[in-house]
Amino acid sequence: MSTNRGIAYIKPGVVEVQDIGYPKLALGDRKCNHGVILKVVSTNICGSDQHMVRGRTTAPEGLILGHEITGIVIEKGSDVEFMNIGDLVSVPFNIACGRCRNCKEQQTGICENVNEARPGAAYGYVDMGGWIGGQSEYVMVPYADFNLLKIPNKDQAMEKIRDLTLLSDILPTGYHGAVTAGVKPGAIVYVAGAGPVGLACAASCHLLGAAVVIVGDMIPERLAQARSFGCETVDLRKDATLAEQIEEIVGVPEVDCTVDCVGFEARGHGASAGVEQPATVLNAAMEVTRAGGGIGIPGLYVTGDPGAKTEAAKIGNLSIRIGLGWAKSHHFHTGQCPVMHYNRNLMQAILHNKIKIADAVNVQVISLDDGPKGYADFDKGAAKKFVIDPHGMIH
Amino acid sequence: MSTNRGIAYIKPGVVEVQDIGYPKLALGDRKCNHGVILKVVSTNICGSDQHMVRGRTTAPEGLILGHEITGIVIEKGSDVEFMNIGDLVSVPFNIACGRCRNCKEQQTGICENVNEARPGAAYGYVDMGGWIGGQSEYVMVPYADFNLLKIPNKDQAMEKIRDLTLLSDILPTGYHGAVTAGVKPGAIVYVAGAGPVGLACAASCHLLGAAVVIVGDMIPERLAQARSFGCETVDLRKDATLAEQIEEIVGVPEVDCTVDCVGFEARGHGASAGVEQPATVLNAAMEVTRAGGGIGIPGLYVTGDPGAKTEAAKIGNLSIRIGLGWAKSHHFHTGQCPVMHYNRNLMQAILHNKIKIADAVNVQVISLDDGPKGYADFDKGAAKKFVIDPHGMIH
Amino acid sequence: MSTNRGIAYIKPGVVEVQDIGYPKLALGDRKCNHGVILKVVSTNICGSDQHMVRGRTTAPEGLILGHEITGIVIEKGSDVEFMNIGDLVSVPFNIACGRCRNCKEQQTGICENVNEARPGAAYGYVDMGGWIGGQSEYVMVPYADFNLLKIPNKDQAMEKIRDLTLLSDILPTGYHGAVTAGVKPGAIVYVAGAGPVGLACAASCHLLGAAVVIVGDMIPERLAQARSFGCETVDLRKDATLAEQIEEIVGVPEVDCTVDCVGFEARGHGASAGVEQPATVLNAAMEVTRAGGGIGIPGLYVTGDPGAKTEAAKIGNLSIRIGLGWAKSHHFHTGQCPVMHYNRNLMQAILHNKIKIADAVNVQVISLDDGPKGYADFDKGAAKKFVIDPHGMIH
Amino acid sequence: MSTNRGIAYIKPGVVEVQDIGYPKLALGDRKCNHGVILKVVSTNICGSDQHMVRGRTTAPEGLILGHEITGIVIEKGSDVEFMNIGDLVSVPFNIACGRCRNCKEQQTGICENVNEARPGAAYGYVDMGGWIGGQSEYVMVPYADFNLLKIPNKDQAMEKIRDLTLLSDILPTGYHGAVTAGVKPGAIVYVAGAGPVGLACAASCHLLGAAVVIVGDMIPERLAQARSFGCETVDLRKDATLAEQIEEIVGVPEVDCTVDCVGFEARGHGASAGVEQPATVLNAAMEVTRAGGGIGIPGLYVTGDPGAKTEAAKIGNLSIRIGLGWAKSHHFHTGQCPVMHYNRNLMQAILHNKIKIADAVNVQVISLDDGPKGYADFDKGAAKKFVIDPHGMIH
Repeated sequence: MSTNRGIAYIKPGVVEVQDIGYPKLALGDRKCNHGVILKVVSTNICGSDQHMVRGRTTAPEGLILGHEITGIVIEKGSDVEFMNIGDLVSVPFNIACGRCRNCKEQQTGICENVNEARPGAAYGYVDMGGWIGGQSEYVMVPYADFNLLKIPNKDQAMEKIRDLTLLSDILPTGYHGAVTAGVKPGAIVYVAGAGPVGLACAASCHLLGAAVVIVGDMIPERLAQARSFGCETVDLRKDATLAEQIEEIVGVPEVDCTVDCVGFEARGHGASAGVEQPATVLNAAMEVTRAGGGIGIPGLYVTGDPGAKTEAAKIGNLSIRIGLGWAKSHHFHTGQCPVMHYNRNLMQAILHNKIKIADAVNVQVISLDDGPKGYADFDKGAAKKFVIDPHGMIH
Repeated sequence: MSTNRGIAYIKPGVVEVQDIGYPKLALGDRKCNHGVILKVVSTNICGSDQHMVRGRTTAPEGLILGHEITGIVIEKGSDVEFMNIGDLVSVPFNIACGRCRNCKEQQTGICENVNEARPGAAYGYVDMGGWIGGQSEYVMVPYADFNLLKIPNKDQAMEKIRDLTLLSDILPTGYHGAVTAGVKPGAIVYVAGAGPVGLACAASCHLLGAAVVIVGDMIPERLAQARSFGCETVDLRKDATLAEQIEEIVGVPEVDCTVDCVGFEARGHGASAGVEQPATVLNAAMEVTRAGGGIGIPGLYVTGDPGAKTEAAKIGNLSIRIGLGWAKSHHFHTGQCPVMHYNRNLMQAILHNKIKIADAVNVQVISLDDGPKGYADFDKGAAKKFVIDPHGMIH
Repeated sequence: MSTNRGIAYIKPGVVEVQDIGYPKLALGDRKCNHGVILKVVSTNICGSDQHMVRGRTTAPEGLILGHEITGIVIEKGSDVEFMNIGDLVSVPFNIACGRCRNCKEQQTGICENVNEARPGAAYGYVDMGGWIGGQSEYVMVPYADFNLLKIPNKDQAMEKIRDLTLLSDILPTGYHGAVTAGVKPGAIVYVAGAGPVGLACAASCHLLGAAVVIVGDMIPERLAQARSFGCETVDLRKDATLAEQIEEIVGVPEVDCTVDCVGFEARGHGASAGVEQPATVLNAAMEVTRAGGGIGIPGLYVTGDPGAKTEAAKIGNLSIRIGLGWAKSHHFHTGQCPVMHYNRNLMQAILHNKIKIADAVNVQVISLDDGPKGYADFDKGAAKKFVIDPHGMIH
Repeated sequence: MSTNRGIAYIKPGVVEVQDIGYPKLALGDRKCNHGVILKVVSTNICGSDQHMVRGRTTAPEGLILGHEITGIVIEKGSDVEFMNIGDLVSVPFNIACGRCRNCKEQQTGICENVNEARPGAAYGYVDMGGWIGGQSEYVMVPYADFNLLKIPNKDQAMEKIRDLTLLSDILPTGYHGAVTAGVKPGAIVYVAGAGPVGLACAASCHLLGAAVVIVGDMIPERLAQARSFGCETVDLRKDATLAEQIEEIVGVPEVDCTVDCVGFEARGHGASAGVEQPATVLNAAMEVTRAGGGIGIPGLYVTGDPGAKTEAAKIGNLSIRIGLGWAKSHHFHTGQCPVMHYNRNLMQAILHNKIKIADAVNVQVISLDDGPKGYADFDKGAAKKFVIDPHGMIH
């Protein structure tokens, strides 16, 4: 009988590797003949995992983490028709049935059939349907014919696995932020946040033909990482305002589009640096985006935040300068990225060397046992994207 | 020498008809050889005029009001090439140069060349470039070849002038709200507000093929007006929540799209009825719009509101439950309607009897001298759209 | 053991009702545990069936016809999860797997997994994958969770079944032609052909808010049918050219958009009336569509036409005045309608009385045994849409 | 009094430099106070000029050629408000008024007010409104505030003038072909033709993020030029079919999108190499474009071709396999590129080094006196884009 090991959330600040059961083609009583079992080739630690690990959610003890998964099909249910044993596949972090109204409309981030509580589900995430996470050796993926993206030429693909592993979440997520903000050839863009999603967004902006990509953060190593692939940067710890720093770069204090890759755990700029100010990125976005411009918001905002400083913020109510946005005719796009809408095209871009995403986000491959250390380093602001290699398959 | 009379804002609650100068082809020192003088055929009182008249802005004494104008060309500047004396024309309330980046991109609501303070201008409005309003006998329209929409067959058109007069603002504005919210054939829509813009939006939703149009307000006469052309209605004074009332109508507590036709002077629902709660419509919109849906916001939100109840609201900072919108992958579209983007097609819809907009908003034609009374009645919540007929040309 | 009867194509000009086997959850050796068996409530005769029956294709003797199907689920395969016994459902005529790249991109008309010969399949159609047609008492629908549209409130729905039966093909097909041609509120549209698809397209144009819908044909009864729901008409047998007749209606000889609802069996206009001229509709479309306009082409053009008059036309090569289209910056959209992209919204429009499509196309309900007579009458140009009611369920 | 010299078309195969009058702010009797006089900095020879010079049009003797113009404003009319003496500007080859319905809808390629014969005009082109061409020292540009694109930082810009000169036509034209074909990140594209427009299209595909760009031609030097910036190539003189050569490159015989950068003077492939076959590119496009894909057609197709081989082709009627396109649900986009829709963003891409378009198309700068030689060399198939520098301002 097969065994399995995975990373569990224990309590705020603590994760550990545990023996967990070998996956079944089921979610509790719900049979998943449409599912497959994957041998996990790579599985990444995500910034949104950190929200749980920092205790900013109601995640229960023992929750198995991990929603960024690439693997090889080793077992398949009776309803799986187009995936085969041995296929190398990328798993979108959103779980989707492929059969409801939203899935049919390419809104796989809000599938109606995979989470009883509300539309939308994910692997290993609180309130996201109870599906077991994939920071483990093996994992079950339901509705496999629909959810999985088959990667051609497995051997060649393994050469680029450090890039391809980012197709499950952060590359499409950053790209979605850019697309919804209206980034296109010639655009001048501000990307708030130089964590992995921010860097993936910045790299996506380049892929989309942006003329200037300006990345803002407060961690010098992350800004250096952004500069390493052709971005301009803004250091938010400086006294100069964001608008002033943008003006220094492009001659005017505004950009065409802004992408918020930070979300609700934002902290103040300049004098307020370090103080949690959950709406500061959104308000800054309205200030520096030109009239008529778009604001993409892949950064997470939540409906419940037990760790918030105010009663309003605890239920996701933030003080937003909507009057400014209105005066500038801004449009705003929120929500989880529907990964499937983008992953095939982004895979092609990786396979044909149009984007060097692993270098952009500074992938560091670690073992499953080093997962807890990866979580700790990432939480300290390391300018790295940690990719777990549970079976030692990545060179 | 010609004379001219127009409606001036005097102080909160007071407007009056004054002798004002006959228009010149100029704005102060700025020559407008590209402009025309119109004999005003009709000019409507708008809800956004009320913001000024209620003292919720910094409008100066003596400002001549009026940005909803239809007229006949009686004089033209030397650079006007395609408009002719005698043409019946509709004037978009946005003033636009037709030559800047934004105008070229069809964003005429944020023209860069007609307001020194910021992008975007209008006739007779505070902080909108200083252009003289058109609730008067005669008015000057700059960049006439670009701004004016020529209405064909003047005699036939005068038969529909009660409808055509609404092309200058509220019909395109309501339509823009619907379009940006994603309304299309088969959609189920909630329109917040049954004032003239709300009713114009509801009629636009029908034109766009919406299956069900639900209008919410707290004034029974306005709700009755909405029902008169096939809308469902929600009375926000009731104890039942908005979601409950929607569920009663369509079987589920959510709609596909929502349009906020109220803006920052919103008041509480149910138990809080009557209390000003500037973000209540936006927060309700997120509650009742289904995951993946769109929210159009033609209702005005301002950057400065001297009459607001809180310091935050005085600078346009509102408490918005963005976490809920994010969880539902909502998108939001704000700002002035770029009228020119829509007015030609909507004119065709009126001329060919596809929309009965004057009946929908309950147009009442009044004389210029009755303008102040129109302001007062409208402020009390009359379910009417007041159209001023300065020359007695409308039967 | 259940029996089944259906309409078979025998030879050019001849169809007959036969005993056919009760459907299996399989296509030959291919198991379809994802399929359901439907009791057919209604199934319509389509103009594209006529291409086969007139001998203009290579359809084999014995082919069971019928791709416009509405039914009740009476049996389901082991993998069907969201459809239930007793559900009333509409079946898109395109068969789609819901799992390939094209299906994921909402291009269900060119599914890659349901036809070995090429992308795209349909029930009961030559070269479309070998799936058994539904002009019968019972039929099998594969990938049922994906393909079927559940119609709510079965009892109420049966009151509108004459309308709902048109969701399987001609209403979405006509609507797709209108949408791809760019029809929107205020548009002036020319619809070529007043057969059922043309009439459904015209009704769709009204639903989309078109200002003027002009329908052209050579059969007076069909033109009268078009006029019955507010269309203007053009009689192509007249000496006046199409452009001249359009000018008489709208004052200019051009329209904003054109939809070709005729296809390759087009016949000449005016002096050439009655002579087959397969490109005449396309060439006329370029002549009467204004510069910058769109041309939607839901009418069928084929890659092989054994009955064509020229060698070129036998392989689908037609003499098209592309130089004219280029000079006018036209865009052209061809192909099968991806029904699923539209059917849910159109169902809502039917259920909420926004479109009276059964009246527009003049539905006539007949028994299965009267099917052959329906084919014959339709071929003679009857201004009717024949809907077969195999179980006598429609009042 | 100023003088002026320009390149005139004399007869098939012959152009020469002549003394021509200094430009006036007028077109015959039509005053152009909205115009400016430019000192021409650069003006390019275009493939569409060759159609005239080869005698394939009805261009009259003495027509002054040139529609690709970059210059410096040296005189301006009284109605010009936002352009200043000394500004470096790019001139879109389409002349547009900025005031008609089409211009307002960003369709500047079909302006209604600049050509009495039909929508759309250009400088120095037969049947395009009679505006004098710009292959000269000085030229008049009407509606200057609308038509001109101001290039910032003149001195820096002159360093990139070899790239910026391509903004007036071929870069936007190639880009428009790519955009309308649906090219986006990850796409696999076939570009037919490796002349300057084909190469500009290929470079645009890279800017748009295409994964693989395959360029086909029959001139080895042009294919080498395409390979110089990362394209794959197909040599159409080979025996292997286009589909076979594509399959060799990408593993399947189809691409996602195709752009026809050849037009009506196409010649046969393979065995028919060299024989004029005006529809061969379009028919090949349908063969190699995958089902659901798009076909952009910036290559010119004409309504009258006195040099055509058949009566049908003389009026622009070609034998097109539309049945194949229909079976594959293709969409087709034709017509002149509306340059203004794209030139600002493409300028930003050039100024920020996102595209090296001068290198891609192999710009060769020549004097005005060498213009006739440039025409001759280009006609022989030189893999160069000739840029005339009338005042010796380019280093």
